[in-house]
Amino acid sequence: MYSILSSLTRWAVAAVCVATMHGATPALGDEGMWLFSAPPLTRIERDHGVQLTPKWLEHLQRSSVRLSSGGSGAFVSPDGLVLTNHHVGADAIHKLSAANHDLLASGFAAATRAEELKCPDLELNVLISIEDVTDRVQAAVTVTMTPDEAFAARRAVMAEIEKESLAATSLRSDVVTLWQGAAYHLYRAKKYTDVRLVFAPEQQIAFFGGDADNFEFPRYNLDICFFRAYEDGRPAKVDHHLVWATRPVAAGDVVFVSGHPGHTDRGATVAELVSLRDRRLPLDLRILNRLEATIGAYAARGPEQRRQALQDVHGVENGRKARAGVLGGLLNPAIMTAKREEERRLREEIEAEPAGRESPFMRIERAQGTLDEIAVRYRLFEGAAGFNSDSFRTARTILRSIEERAKPSGERLREFRESNRESLEQQLFTDEPLYDAYETVKLADSLTFLATSLGADDELVVRVLDGKAPVDRAAVAVAGTELGRRAPPSTRPDRRRELYEGGRAGVAASTDAMLALAKIVDGESRRLRTIAEAADEVKKQAHAEIVRARFAREGLAMAPDATFTLRLAYGVVTGGTQAGITYPAVTTFGGLFARAEEKQEMPPFDLPPRWLEARPALAADATFAATAFNFASTADIIGGNSGSPVVNAAGELVGVIFDGNIDSLVLDVAYDDQRARAVAVDATGIVAALQQVYAADMLLAEILTKAEKKK
Amino acid sequence: MYSILSSLTRWAVAAVCVATMHGATPALGDEGMWLFSAPPLTRIERDHGVQLTPKWLEHLQRSSVRLSSGGSGAFVSPDGLVLTNHHVGADAIHKLSAANHDLLASGFAAATRAEELKCPDLELNVLISIEDVTDRVQAAVTVTMTPDEAFAARRAVMAEIEKESLAATSLRSDVVTLWQGAAYHLYRAKKYTDVRLVFAPEQQIAFFGGDADNFEFPRYNLDICFFRAYEDGRPAKVDHHLVWATRPVAAGDVVFVSGHPGHTDRGATVAELVSLRDRRLPLDLRILNRLEATIGAYAARGPEQRRQALQDVHGVENGRKARAGVLGGLLNPAIMTAKREEERRLREEIEAEPAGRESPFMRIERAQGTLDEIAVRYRLFEGAAGFNSDSFRTARTILRSIEERAKPSGERLREFRESNRESLEQQLFTDEPLYDAYETVKLADSLTFLATSLGADDELVVRVLDGKAPVDRAAVAVAGTELGRRAPPSTRPDRRRELYEGGRAGVAASTDAMLALAKIVDGESRRLRTIAEAADEVKKQAHAEIVRARFAREGLAMAPDATFTLRLAYGVVTGGTQAGITYPAVTTFGGLFARAEEKQEMPPFDLPPRWLEARPALAADATFAATAFNFASTADIIGGNSGSPVVNAAGELVGVIFDGNIDSLVLDVAYDDQRARAVAVDATGIVAALQQVYAADMLLAEILTKAEKKK
Repeated sequence: MYSILSSLTRWAVAAVCVATMHGATPALGDEGMWLFSAPPLTRIERDHGVQLTPKWLEHLQRSSVRLSSGGSGAFVSPDGLVLTNHHVGADAIHKLSAANHDLLASGFAAATRAEELKCPDLELNVLISIEDVTDRVQAAVTVTMTPDEAFAARRAVMAEIEKESLAATSLRSDVVTLWQGAAYHLYRAKKYTDVRLVFAPEQQIAFFGGDADNFEFPRYNLDICFFRAYEDGRPAKVDHHLVWATRPVAAGDVVFVSGHPGHTDRGATVAELVSLRDRRLPLDLRILNRLEATIGAYAARGPEQRRQALQDVHGVENGRKARAGVLGGLLNPAIMTAKREEERRLREEIEAEPAGRESPFMRIERAQGTLDEIAVRYRLFEGAAGFNSDSFRTARTILRSIEERAKPSGERLREFRESNRESLEQQLFTDEPLYDAYETVKLADSLTFLATSLGADDELVVRVLDGKAPVDRAAVAVAGTELGRRAPPSTRPDRRRELYEGGRAGVAASTDAMLALAKIVDGESRRLRTIAEAADEVKKQAHAEIVRARFAREGLAMAPDATFTLRLAYGVVTGGTQAGITYPAVTTFGGLFARAEEKQEMPPFDLPPRWLEARPALAADATFAATAFNFASTADIIGGNSGSPVVNAAGELVGVIFDGNIDSLVLDVAYDDQRARAVAVDATGIVAALQQVYAADMLLAEILTKAEKKK
Repeated sequence: MYSILSSLTRWAVAAVCVATMHGATPALGDEGMWLFSAPPLTRIERDHGVQLTPKWLEHLQRSSVRLSSGGSGAFVSPDGLVLTNHHVGADAIHKLSAANHDLLASGFAAATRAEELKCPDLELNVLISIEDVTDRVQAAVTVTMTPDEAFAARRAVMAEIEKESLAATSLRSDVVTLWQGAAYHLYRAKKYTDVRLVFAPEQQIAFFGGDADNFEFPRYNLDICFFRAYEDGRPAKVDHHLVWATRPVAAGDVVFVSGHPGHTDRGATVAELVSLRDRRLPLDLRILNRLEATIGAYAARGPEQRRQALQDVHGVENGRKARAGVLGGLLNPAIMTAKREEERRLREEIEAEPAGRESPFMRIERAQGTLDEIAVRYRLFEGAAGFNSDSFRTARTILRSIEERAKPSGERLREFRESNRESLEQQLFTDEPLYDAYETVKLADSLTFLATSLGADDELVVRVLDGKAPVDRAAVAVAGTELGRRAPPSTRPDRRRELYEGGRAGVAASTDAMLALAKIVDGESRRLRTIAEAADEVKKQAHAEIVRARFAREGLAMAPDATFTLRLAYGVVTGGTQAGITYPAVTTFGGLFARAEEKQEMPPFDLPPRWLEARPALAADATFAATAFNFASTADIIGGNSGSPVVNAAGELVGVIFDGNIDSLVLDVAYDDQRARAVAVDATGIVAALQQVYAADMLLAEILTKAEKKK
């Protein structure tokens, strides 16, 4: 599956970001996750004969939605109905579930709007405008500044721009770093914080084939769900939404994908790629493999433990497979040889020109060395891989918010900037249920990882463990905190809010055990973060130089690396060949039944009860069996594109992205259209399933209104 | 489960052994895995009022069996019938299975002796005699020798003793290092290489509760199976076998365990324990976590893949949980503080005496430092964690056997000594089926581990990968070898045997891809091994000094650390308390049904079809429901004790060890009788299940003959 990582995984693998640069060769084929402010209109017309108009682009942009859980989606009705992937919505669905009330297992369909379920902490954003603020950001930084000073100056001006924009427009305002520092754009988005669940199928059919079929094609997944944006307690009225296409896609069709790819490294220098290959990805995988074992063992304890942990299990498996794929690409000498050759040529040209400073490639390599040196400690402390607990994260956010709010917005840690306050508070005060036993298992495991990574005699480890074995230390911390265990609002005050709003004295006086743990390590976390920020600033400046030099020669021929902001990709619907076996562009419901049978319906190749009941009739219905279910295309996508609408040249919805195949994982570092495929649920397949399996008439009436009219 | 690791896990975690020394405090309570040549008769009589006679001991010794798959067992009939654990036999049962013929899933019962199934590579040993050869071994080594010379001299004299003994007695002859070098004993064993499967229940009931309940108590597992030793094609006639007790055990009973504990570290110095805690166990866990993810993902691909990999999955989960338990103990400051204090006192005394050499503690610390420095490379190459493939192992054994056989036995790598030849060949020429896809997945994953551990630009890594990504390199190696894929004997010659018997020219001329891979890395493997052997020799000599000093003061008050040789342990049948909850000493079949219900029969808490069918009648049968199923005791056991017979004071069989609880894992480094428990299947429970669920009348007739007569 193709979302930005689940919250747990993000937590586990959050790391020093490898800064990326503009790619060193011009875009090939259908390469590119393009800015909506600079789409490759000429190329699209030349290669595919489609002329995109400003109106077409604006409609698609305004219909596209970003979900704070790490994926994409689209409005599909004027009443704020949003289509996305089940696995993008799963975090919210899980938080709406409880013991003996598992909406992931049973699926959910609101019979009326009144029954739609409010999600604890889901936020939707719709991009309204893009403004280039590069000159103002770059003007704040001068060459005489130290990296620390430059970082501070840049952070300050970005926060200032965002604050001004928020005040002027009331829109969410984020300055986004593009081409790793060569450009800065102000993205303004409309924000919806009241989001409700409308419809979800069973996870069993949404994620049919599980980890085994994840990142594979052919696929047979109803990986969809519907939310609705609300404003002032009523369904949001939206000006733009996508209309269902009346024809399914066919091989050879050109399709467009509008979504939020999370992160790519195509512009990374060789030094950065070597670090990614030999250090960061192996460390990611070490952490993920460990989590997979720990969480998997917890989930195996019984049905309720399984329910609590299953989303995390999926998230970790997904992260492990995704990273192993990128690593596999980097370990392919063909790819690295090409990267080295590209860089050699570019570097010769750049370094041939007289410059007052050291080569930007050398500066990047040196800064990467600094990041590598602190990488494990950074991950353990600032990345909190040594403190894997939701209530620890809450404690740290509260602790830091008190300290940071005392400073001007531009001097705060970036996530505490004034313009981000509402989003931060929505995350912090979530009503997500937590489970003490599960929290304890995760915290004990990560404290063990901390102790073994640094050695159990390390002074800070000794202070953290406080004379106890990790499992006992974790139990004490979880039992002694009120920040994780959500009391029903009616019976107990929310300690989080009390502390968050109480100021320094409250935090100083608190005896909360998790807050105490956060206090012990926050100094070290901040120290490491400062080092990383300065190194990143060095890389930003160097990358900007490299990219500017390229722009001067080649013009704006390449899209910037992905940044979880809205992008336009496109490609052709097509099958392919894997391990010598040819596969078609489009799969069908008949293929689903055949796949289940081939695997003797061993989980995760089993069908949910509703599908088992309907199967005899559906399998006998030749039309249904032949209906398109999933399809593959060459569109250039990556994690974060999950839930992205796929539209045809007319701008009609033909599908929703939910995955890429295994060969697509290398897209992180290099584009390929021979073997890499984007994978989507077919829009006509969605309608067929809603009609014939779920009898979701109300939902169908809402999404098909205009399409029907058009007929 | 409590076997020495499965073959895969042994492979993955085979490592520089942490040398161990005699414990620094006298045995407490029922501590001790005692030599049969030096049982603590006085203590047993004093503490439990039982007087063990030489005849009693000899009978138990000669009835006890060691299995080459890494566990223990006992003769239970005069016709060579052997009782052990299902999980000890599972490796053999898996090798006897095939697609659509899964004996682990279905269970197996031979209706006649003719139907008993010959295991591809299982060897049984019965200990016949123990001879102290310490003086001869120590005399071969002088203080003026370098560690390399001392290692070679010691290896040579050990091989010489073994060869002489084999020639004189035709018995398997192994010189065993005890108290880490303070004593050397010659163990002579009768060897059975024709071993056949007689009876196995379904793995579902043998391993009820799976990884979740592994290393836990209360338990409900029918973890048994029966093999039979054959000689000259006929059931072996054995002079000693255990007779079934007619009464079940009860809380408070003293019980004796005769089996083969694999390895403990109670005598390790603090420097060795710190290395174990901060380096070796974390590295073990990193490898195991990685394998768990990789193998688990393969097993999830479908029913046949699951069948191929399931034993390895269990093995890896078991290894992960066992090591996490030991690590948890070492991270408990209470245990380390006690170890440090013990060592401080001992060290003061020893270092106070004038000595011509550096303190033995310092020498151990230095040698451990050397081992730590090479630990990762050693594991990757000599431990072959970078080359996880059965056919790679075969290739290396063939390659080395050609080189080693050209030398005198005493100068060879120890596993190639003449007296071990028959056992080595039995392993090498196994008819175990291999699966190319599975081999490729494991090899690709381990090559990736190699590349990321050393960096993909490491010169040897580059030579190994040969310009390919790990997944492609693995595919080429597996496709290009005939050492792994077993042709049916009738259609194709066995290339393994051809090469093994063919000498240098054959190996040099071979184009086998896996042999070529082994050739690339064997130089580095041998280099690392030589360093490790010299460091181990330094530790041996130093440990011997420490232990001799203690013996001089305290006498032989402590059993040596475990070495996978026969030992006698004892304890009391008793329940206990865990996480504040009291549990009984004995569980029942009624408890089994309740546990399955509590877990909603979610796998691995589900019952096999035969049990589901019988359940209504069995649950209604108050006698059956109240029958003892599993029991706990304070006996001092560790991995390798799996399958050990448990006998009462009369020497009658009352159970068979299959596990320890989670608190018992710390027994690796320190004895405890407050929380640690050994876990056994009750002998009366075995009979009840065989009668009432399996109707195994023939088997019952054979094992109950004498018991019935006794009544």
